[in-house]
Amino acid sequence: MSHHYLDTDTTIVAPATAVGGAVIVVRLCGPKAIAIADTMFRGKRPLTQAKGYTLHYGELVYDNGNIIDDVIVALFRAPHSYTGDDTIEITLHGSEYIASEVIRLAIERGATMATPGEFTRRAFLAGKMDLCRAEAVADLIASDSRWSHNVATTQMRGSYSEKLTALRSELLRLCSLLELELDFSEEDVEFADRTQLVSILKNIDGEIAKLKSSFALGKALKNGVTVAIVGEPNVGKSTLLNTLIGDDRAMVSNIAGTTRDTIEATTTIDGIRYRFIDTAGLRTTDDSLEQMGIDRTYRAIDKANIILHLVSADNPEFSSITTLNNQHYIKVINKIDCVALSKDSYNDCIFISAKQEIGIDELRQRIHQSTDTSQLSSGSIVVSNMRHYSALSNAQESLHIALTSLENHTPSDLVSSDIRRILHHLGEITGEITTDDILHNIFSNFCIGK
Amino acid sequence: MSHHYLDTDTTIVAPATAVGGAVIVVRLCGPKAIAIADTMFRGKRPLTQAKGYTLHYGELVYDNGNIIDDVIVALFRAPHSYTGDDTIEITLHGSEYIASEVIRLAIERGATMATPGEFTRRAFLAGKMDLCRAEAVADLIASDSRWSHNVATTQMRGSYSEKLTALRSELLRLCSLLELELDFSEEDVEFADRTQLVSILKNIDGEIAKLKSSFALGKALKNGVTVAIVGEPNVGKSTLLNTLIGDDRAMVSNIAGTTRDTIEATTTIDGIRYRFIDTAGLRTTDDSLEQMGIDRTYRAIDKANIILHLVSADNPEFSSITTLNNQHYIKVINKIDCVALSKDSYNDCIFISAKQEIGIDELRQRIHQSTDTSQLSSGSIVVSNMRHYSALSNAQESLHIALTSLENHTPSDLVSSDIRRILHHLGEITGEITTDDILHNIFSNFCIGK
Repeated sequence: MSHHYLDTDTTIVAPATAVGGAVIVVRLCGPKAIAIADTMFRGKRPLTQAKGYTLHYGELVYDNGNIIDDVIVALFRAPHSYTGDDTIEITLHGSEYIASEVIRLAIERGATMATPGEFTRRAFLAGKMDLCRAEAVADLIASDSRWSHNVATTQMRGSYSEKLTALRSELLRLCSLLELELDFSEEDVEFADRTQLVSILKNIDGEIAKLKSSFALGKALKNGVTVAIVGEPNVGKSTLLNTLIGDDRAMVSNIAGTTRDTIEATTTIDGIRYRFIDTAGLRTTDDSLEQMGIDRTYRAIDKANIILHLVSADNPEFSSITTLNNQHYIKVINKIDCVALSKDSYNDCIFISAKQEIGIDELRQRIHQSTDTSQLSSGSIVVSNMRHYSALSNAQESLHIALTSLENHTPSDLVSSDIRRILHHLGEITGEITTDDILHNIFSNFCIGK
Repeated sequence: MSHHYLDTDTTIVAPATAVGGAVIVVRLCGPKAIAIADTMFRGKRPLTQAKGYTLHYGELVYDNGNIIDDVIVALFRAPHSYTGDDTIEITLHGSEYIASEVIRLAIERGATMATPGEFTRRAFLAGKMDLCRAEAVADLIASDSRWSHNVATTQMRGSYSEKLTALRSELLRLCSLLELELDFSEEDVEFADRTQLVSILKNIDGEIAKLKSSFALGKALKNGVTVAIVGEPNVGKSTLLNTLIGDDRAMVSNIAGTTRDTIEATTTIDGIRYRFIDTAGLRTTDDSLEQMGIDRTYRAIDKANIILHLVSADNPEFSSITTLNNQHYIKVINKIDCVALSKDSYNDCIFISAKQEIGIDELRQRIHQSTDTSQLSSGSIVVSNMRHYSALSNAQESLHIALTSLENHTPSDLVSSDIRRILHHLGEITGEITTDDILHNIFSNFCIGK
């Protein structure tokens, strides 16, 4: 059964946990959640008679009485649940087969498979949280380091929402004053002092600029910083990857071209997540599979925040690599345990032996310095969401138009509509202003079950 | 803090679900579970005052008040929990980082990281389930098809335990009679009729043989049936794998040697799980990486239950492949859409086109016929556990010794001790007889958190 993603009168079902652990939790949510669960539950008493915030031990059974599993059912009654609906969470033994059977039965009995993010979307539609906080839920789930967790919890706590609400109410006040002038347009009065108006808008401009400038850091914290390890075949790229992450992630041999496809591994340095990409060695080749790997290397270089260009000490020549404007480029000479080189002739390079683990700490520090973390320690708000960044940019653009209008003594109704446009874009972030498209884009990026 | 695996007075902690879903559940279990959870929980009221089988919404916080996450806590009070101990299950947002922080704090406050299977081991030690049922829990978690689920639930329901208990009590009765004779040894009486004794033992022998013979099927149901797809390079092995599982699992190109490493994919046919292994093409090669792949192909052939030997219709020669006694060997001719071949000359072969999906159903049926599922439909007990199989074998061996002793008119005390040995081995299955080693072996194969 298909349903529109803004429906909230259907009952939805989805696994809330990943498969592969001791247990799996399946979540049912909506007006028929408790009744549907009850059709397959055999416990001390029917779930329909149970109070909210209670747990129930029993068996899930097929119609013919065959047992599916021993389970624990958690029961929440509307409005005291995550989404505000009646909610059932069934803890099953961790078999994907069992989970799929339970979901199949729930659907047979009237539930609908939840779309990605549908539980949180319902929470938003029920007014349980604003859009900005709903998005923080997804970020929180994805958080994999101290700082990404920090940014997400701050956003979920709402200090970002509060900041935006403050900016909006300031703008709303200005708007009302300007619009009041329209009612007295015959009389040519100015309720809003133009000089003061300009100064307030410039102030807000500064606030928006500050939020926008935090985005580079926010993105790095949220998605991790991508570091591509590139160089010719056999200079020790895979060995360096393994040394940096402290694990034997990549297959290593002394055969040039061992790494065919790009290999990724992540590690955390001082609370920030780094994603290292080991690439196929760059060389001219007739082997079409190797060439596929080399093409992928160039794509990896394009996407990286940091490029580690590795050469071997026995041939310390750095071929030219095209880097983008905002990319950090670090030259590294490997195998210094095998060949003696004078550091003086290569003072912009880091000397390492990936095999002997010499110089690795210095390399780690250099990588870490590429990320400016000073904004974090001050506790200021960090924007980590592309959608917010784009809304802030739009708001700023409208703000600049409003400023120009003011300078040109444009009539107050036009200035007011410029300011309304700023309000609109800021409102998109917290969800005061939404469209089906915005909601769809946001929640379709959630995982299923949230 | 390390602890002995038979301790039950410690409080243990572990994630109960896998990472990667919307939520993660962390489980705390033991006398201090509720108190430890309470040190980091901030809700309406302290958990220590809550009743069992209740749910609690609140925040987990660090000592400095910083919030880790919004959570739901499920609380179970001894003895009404899975293990019989006080138990807390915390549902977190699904971030591995958050889960690791919560576990770290729990350990700081006196909990110990749970070893694999420790929760279920505690349930066994507390008498909540016998060993055979505890093992069924692990099987249930691993079940990935209708029949493996069926075998595991039957075992967990205890019909297997009941069967064994029946056999044991029969043997115990015989033992008592024989041992009674010892008390009257001066008088040369026979309380146990020797002819009847032999007939009962032979009857039990038959029961054990039946259980043992179900093991081949049980193993196949539990672990899946392994099917190796082998043949020369470029006969279409990867294409066949993709067609059989209905997915683009393996990289396909017209370059011979595209598949370097063995690739696995599973699919279910009529409730039984099949694991298909696509292998590197067999040929003589100087490429050492390709040779590594070919070596792995031979290892895959050794382990397979079924070998699909694939040739191309343009060169329908089957090179000799060494198969083991119990392996099914199926010859398949691919690419029949390209070359016309007379079926008459190859009547032991299946004709297919992996690309055009011709003959695939027939191939699936032929694969499925290799597994004898007749025992399943009759509802009889299927042994699926290697440890049980080995205990049954030992029991049967002791039983044959007892029979020989009876034939040789051995004194009743020796016969009785033979029968005691049968009892011992059967008792190992349900856990009436256990050693530290047995327990350790069983539970160390569980996943963490169960």
